[in-house]
Amino acid sequence: MRFAHIFYISYVNIVPMRDIVIIGHKAKTDGDFSLNDLPGSAGRMDILCRCVSSALFLSFGMRRDVNVHLLLLGEPDPGKIIRFEGLHLRYLNPDERSSGSLIQKALKKDATERDIRSTPGVWIRRGDLGFLLSKFEGRTLLYLREDGEDIRAIANEIRDPVFFLGDHVGVTEEEEERLLKAGAKTISVGPLSLHSNHCITLVHNELDRAEAQRGELPGEIERSIEN
Amino acid sequence: MRFAHIFYISYVNIVPMRDIVIIGHKAKTDGDFSLNDLPGSAGRMDILCRCVSSALFLSFGMRRDVNVHLLLLGEPDPGKIIRFEGLHLRYLNPDERSSGSLIQKALKKDATERDIRSTPGVWIRRGDLGFLLSKFEGRTLLYLREDGEDIRAIANEIRDPVFFLGDHVGVTEEEEERLLKAGAKTISVGPLSLHSNHCITLVHNELDRAEAQRGELPGEIERSIEN
Repeated sequence: MRFAHIFYISYVNIVPMRDIVIIGHKAKTDGDFSLNDLPGSAGRMDILCRCVSSALFLSFGMRRDVNVHLLLLGEPDPGKIIRFEGLHLRYLNPDERSSGSLIQKALKKDATERDIRSTPGVWIRRGDLGFLLSKFEGRTLLYLREDGEDIRAIANEIRDPVFFLGDHVGVTEEEEERLLKAGAKTISVGPLSLHSNHCITLVHNELDRAEAQRGELPGEIERSIEN
Repeated sequence: MRFAHIFYISYVNIVPMRDIVIIGHKAKTDGDFSLNDLPGSAGRMDILCRCVSSALFLSFGMRRDVNVHLLLLGEPDPGKIIRFEGLHLRYLNPDERSSGSLIQKALKKDATERDIRSTPGVWIRRGDLGFLLSKFEGRTLLYLREDGEDIRAIANEIRDPVFFLGDHVGVTEEEEERLLKAGAKTISVGPLSLHSNHCITLVHNELDRAEAQRGELPGEIERSIEN
């Protein structure tokens, strides 16, 4: 619909977006895994599923201003990116199996160098960290590391951020080097080392609080805005 | 072991504990549900599973100073409490299915008015909100509600807390009345209404930061302290 399209363009231009990248080093890159065993059969896909849920869900709705990018680097075909767009997303429930199922559906598509839509708000393509870093050139790149600057001290200055998080094995030295070279700033969320999905909840909260203080729209918009 | 027992007694006396109660109004009270369908077949048990995980996991270990109490009020036998003790817990992984499986095992025991151990660190008994409130008499009772006082303003004063959270239907008027009558203070975690597991992550973070500021042990102790 033309009207919806125009609305979408003006929406993404006005509302600050939050993009969140999670690197899944072992995450399977075909759909041949069991939803009954996401940790084992799918290369710790459970971690990525929890990240999707933490990134996108509010209590009564979805964060329409958030995109999640899962960088899948496991076998058998490493280098795929699945994107969840909060604005267009449908059919996602907060349980791990629900996001696992949408990931599996996306992985059953033939991924190419162009985005392919799998289900509403879910896209898949080939790509690596280099692709994502060039896609996000000009944005505020923030890389979560235990010894980074406390996000609480700088939350109010953060605009148009892209967050990068590792999985259970963290981020490799090579990836870290690329992130820093691209201008990413290291940030931390507290005194303890936490799971990636918990870090995402904390990052959102700091930004929600900063936006609320500034009197800006804090995350949620009408659920009626779909495709 | 006698030594371990003495150590446990002195540990719980020295280290401040965090207790977290989640009320599952629809959560099934027998083990007759499918781990493949925790939201549907188990009365939104997926919510409680995510709460267990958020309450207990650090990146490389477990929060040994945390106990989680799931108050299960669904059919067929409402009024059961499953307790996860961080100090003694074993066989728990962060995925929903893992906590779901430990809950299911506990529910297969014949629950009585006395604690029965199901697996290491997991206990089940009959009980209701009144039982929990009398058990926690003298502790700092904190009830999470959107319009409560911002936890960030008071985190540094909180000692020996017990947090109460609802599930997807919140907390009933009657439950709220009992909580307030028992002296519970209402607190909030930010400007948006969030899922219970996200609230738990935020509450932990505020207390971790406060403890770190005071130079106290922030959560994690030796993994070697088991039963």
